Amino acid sequence: MTLFHKATKIILVVERLLRDKVIAIVETEGAKGYTVTEGIGKGAHGLHGSDRPGIAQGFTIVRIEVIVADRAAGERIAEAVADRYFKDYPGIVYMDQVEVLRPDKF
Amino acid sequence: MTLFHKATKIILVVERLLRDKVIAIVETEGAKGYTVTEGIGKGAHGLHGSDRPGIAQGFTIVRIEVIVADRAAGERIAEAVADRYFKDYPGIVYMDQVEVLRPDKF
Amino acid sequence: MTLFHKATKIILVVERLLRDKVIAIVETEGAKGYTVTEGIGKGAHGLHGSDRPGIAQGFTIVRIEVIVADRAAGERIAEAVADRYFKDYPGIVYMDQVEVLRPDKF
Repeated sequence: MTLFHKATKIILVVERLLRDKVIAIVETEGAKGYTVTEGIGKGAHGLHGSDRPGIAQGFTIVRIEVIVADRAAGERIAEAVADRYFKDYPGIVYMDQVEVLRPDKF
Repeated sequence: MTLFHKATKIILVVERLLRDKVIAIVETEGAKGYTVTEGIGKGAHGLHGSDRPGIAQGFTIVRIEVIVADRAAGERIAEAVADRYFKDYPGIVYMDQVEVLRPDKF
Repeated sequence: MTLFHKATKIILVVERLLRDKVIAIVETEGAKGYTVTEGIGKGAHGLHGSDRPGIAQGFTIVRIEVIVADRAAGERIAEAVADRYFKDYPGIVYMDQVEVLRPDKF
């Protein structure tokens, strides 16, 4: 029987121009990998009202998924990205509890 | 210490041609934002058997993620989209409990 | 009132060249549908150290989502893909508990 182990997924949705900077934080905080898909987003999600009116029409985003075995590492990633970027740029971060096969890979 | 707050994620996977109509429902029901990625899908997921044979070969879909602080709003979105579209079009909707940093953004 | 039912989501992130082979496993194990998006990935995720140095620079991946009403079917998919491919290729698989509207569709 295979055992599944609890792990924490962090999802970061940010403007595409921030992709590499956010990935640098992810790696600095100790994540061993990530998955990036592109899309479009719209939102009060980090929107700064009338000073960023164009964003409300939709903007190009990347969705970065990171899984870590250690929840504390996930919290550090979420907080570091939010502190560094979400005062000035739209974006969201959220966490989700998942189950992985081999926790040593994360 | 940063606090994470429970929130509800709704994922809608629908044919691309329905994208804007589904987003209109999402916004009408009070969601403050959404993320859209494109892909392909296949499924009994809403497939209507032999009357839609082409779909069984794979179809172009959008995956729409919405996070709301209020679970009831998430249920309304899921039910409204399913009631309006999933009798006639393939598609799925599901919900997931997640944790967000700033619940006022959702 | 609409009832939501517990279901299991399996997420498979694999190199694009494996897409059709992994989907074949998904279907063989009884899943009724799937959603595929494309992106890029990087990781210790299945990385085989110095014998695959190019991968460490990022590789083109597909993210395959599958939802099944029966958790055991999800575990079989996860284990079958990991056993067959993750010794030789990078990739990750994880599971997540979600809620669906109509369990007969999954």
